[in-house]
Amino acid sequence: MINLRIPGPTPLPPDVQMAVGQQMINHRGAEFGALLAETTAWLKVFFETQQEVLVLTSSGTGAMEASVANTLSPGDRVLAISCGSFGDRFDEIARAYRADVTSLKFAPGRAVDPAVVREAVETQGPFKAAVLTHNETSTGVLNDVQAIAASIRSASPETLIMVDSISGLGGTRLQMDAWDVDVVLTGSQKAWMAPPGLAMIALSNRAWRTYETAQNPRYYFDLGLARQYAARHQTPSTPAVSTLYGLHASLQRMVAEGIEAVAARHEALASHCRACALTLGLGLYAEAGHYSPTVTALTLPAAHKPSDVLNALAERYAIHCGSTKDPSVGVIRIGHMGYCSIADLDAVFVALGEILSSTP
Amino acid sequence: MINLRIPGPTPLPPDVQMAVGQQMINHRGAEFGALLAETTAWLKVFFETQQEVLVLTSSGTGAMEASVANTLSPGDRVLAISCGSFGDRFDEIARAYRADVTSLKFAPGRAVDPAVVREAVETQGPFKAAVLTHNETSTGVLNDVQAIAASIRSASPETLIMVDSISGLGGTRLQMDAWDVDVVLTGSQKAWMAPPGLAMIALSNRAWRTYETAQNPRYYFDLGLARQYAARHQTPSTPAVSTLYGLHASLQRMVAEGIEAVAARHEALASHCRACALTLGLGLYAEAGHYSPTVTALTLPAAHKPSDVLNALAERYAIHCGSTKDPSVGVIRIGHMGYCSIADLDAVFVALGEILSSTP
Repeated sequence: MINLRIPGPTPLPPDVQMAVGQQMINHRGAEFGALLAETTAWLKVFFETQQEVLVLTSSGTGAMEASVANTLSPGDRVLAISCGSFGDRFDEIARAYRADVTSLKFAPGRAVDPAVVREAVETQGPFKAAVLTHNETSTGVLNDVQAIAASIRSASPETLIMVDSISGLGGTRLQMDAWDVDVVLTGSQKAWMAPPGLAMIALSNRAWRTYETAQNPRYYFDLGLARQYAARHQTPSTPAVSTLYGLHASLQRMVAEGIEAVAARHEALASHCRACALTLGLGLYAEAGHYSPTVTALTLPAAHKPSDVLNALAERYAIHCGSTKDPSVGVIRIGHMGYCSIADLDAVFVALGEILSSTP
Repeated sequence: MINLRIPGPTPLPPDVQMAVGQQMINHRGAEFGALLAETTAWLKVFFETQQEVLVLTSSGTGAMEASVANTLSPGDRVLAISCGSFGDRFDEIARAYRADVTSLKFAPGRAVDPAVVREAVETQGPFKAAVLTHNETSTGVLNDVQAIAASIRSASPETLIMVDSISGLGGTRLQMDAWDVDVVLTGSQKAWMAPPGLAMIALSNRAWRTYETAQNPRYYFDLGLARQYAARHQTPSTPAVSTLYGLHASLQRMVAEGIEAVAARHEALASHCRACALTLGLGLYAEAGHYSPTVTALTLPAAHKPSDVLNALAERYAIHCGSTKDPSVGVIRIGHMGYCSIADLDAVFVALGEILSSTP
């Protein structure tokens, strides 16, 4: 039995695993309709929105592309706010779709500063859209989306605010409607405790209005078509049924637990992870005050190469942690989202202690 | 226990179902790499190609879009050959990407006529690409891709020939290299006996050359990036791991059975299905000589509405057959691809006999 501590895919709880292994059904039938309807109703609770949450068969990256393809036209000005690899990915997607992109980059490990964003919008705007990352998986940084959105909104009321919360939502709160965020998207294999293969996305009324005029090509990711099908509890093309079985089962657990309790559980795991790391003398890569509740990036003593430590964890302890997305950054990343216990984390640090105390 | 006879998703064999329900692993680790490498090696056997077969996390429609996004530029002339709903879909995707599309439509139930295609290429060409459907799921028609490809190639040697074989490949042969087809794509939930959520696609050298200059936007479906990652047995973004477990297990069965035997099994099932239908006095919707080996569309006596018959099959017998994709066409569709037995088909016709002999 491995201890899977990469920041996604995350381990499946036993009932989710059982659900995933169920036999196929008719994806145009009543049983599937009920499954999808209940799943999306539960997702709305966690998206904290009255909007429809659409389920796409893709990774989270597909939903990032859907957000760009459905709301923008070539030449639209976009502010791409990034503090790591996944922020950069949103930037690249906007460029791939020929947006006129202004990149606003924060150093790896730092959080996005709402005041700097506000200044960028005021001095370099207007922007049709701003794209940003809620939880930067590559560095273990949680951005303050509420403050960033307020900064953008106050300077430019009609700018679309599009947030990648692939590794955030389900592990921490994002109040889409209350914070006036226009697009929120996430992925099934993160805090949701389901297999990879589904992305979930919701659009504000403002975003749906831009959909009507956006000129970017789209077909598989056409969210208007997805919304039409969702109204009758279907998807335009055949969905990832097994993954949906899993997501339905995991959401049933999460709704029973409650949205505040789910967020508190993640905060407690993250806090325990940081305390263990500090006890071992390891460094926290993320800026203080912006620690991610779902993934922690640790810096190691200079004598220890992250790749060697990761290999030792995997080979000697069957513990799989995450490598760095950026080779210039010497960290290891510990995922603690979804189906993770304090004991799972303790096992990581017992092993890390043994590895780091031996001569490298 | 339902008898799932829609033309996909198809039932999972027990070992595939067990495989799908396995726990998550690191999608950047050695275990996953071995899984993907073996899966794609086996796919090459069925694609009958020396090219890399790429695995995308999407439905088959996503791979259709990938074929257009990766090889074409806005304004490119495309011949969209269609004999049904899924042929029309390829046409729509090319138009969504601003291709200059010439639609060549054959009546529902008819097969694509290679001579007509040749004439279209000669009189209306040159075309950058021709898109077509191997097995038209909506009407139960199998097109002669070998003859169609030869027609196109002889009239226009450099036209890209892009074939949707979503419901064909794995149930019938398509010799990609020998027939000089440029793009072949399929979906995991059809003859492959795996859950929906993965599409598989291969490109010829000619198609890879056009990739270099194609101007359509692409990111999630960037096949060049997918090929780079495939070289180290990974995917650019997180793949549908559970579905891949299933596809690996089903391919293991199929490779052991052998490509000729798999095709013969489907032909035998289709032949049995047609014989049963004729015994009951039902009509075959597809043009004679072009019957699909994976799905049969049946016309009913005028007194019986297809939707009523489908409901009776589902409610009284737990048999799920396919409705029509085109409301003007009064057929029911019986899928017999993948994990299907003669007994499964017999059960359908026993039930149909009872339903049709009662007063409608």
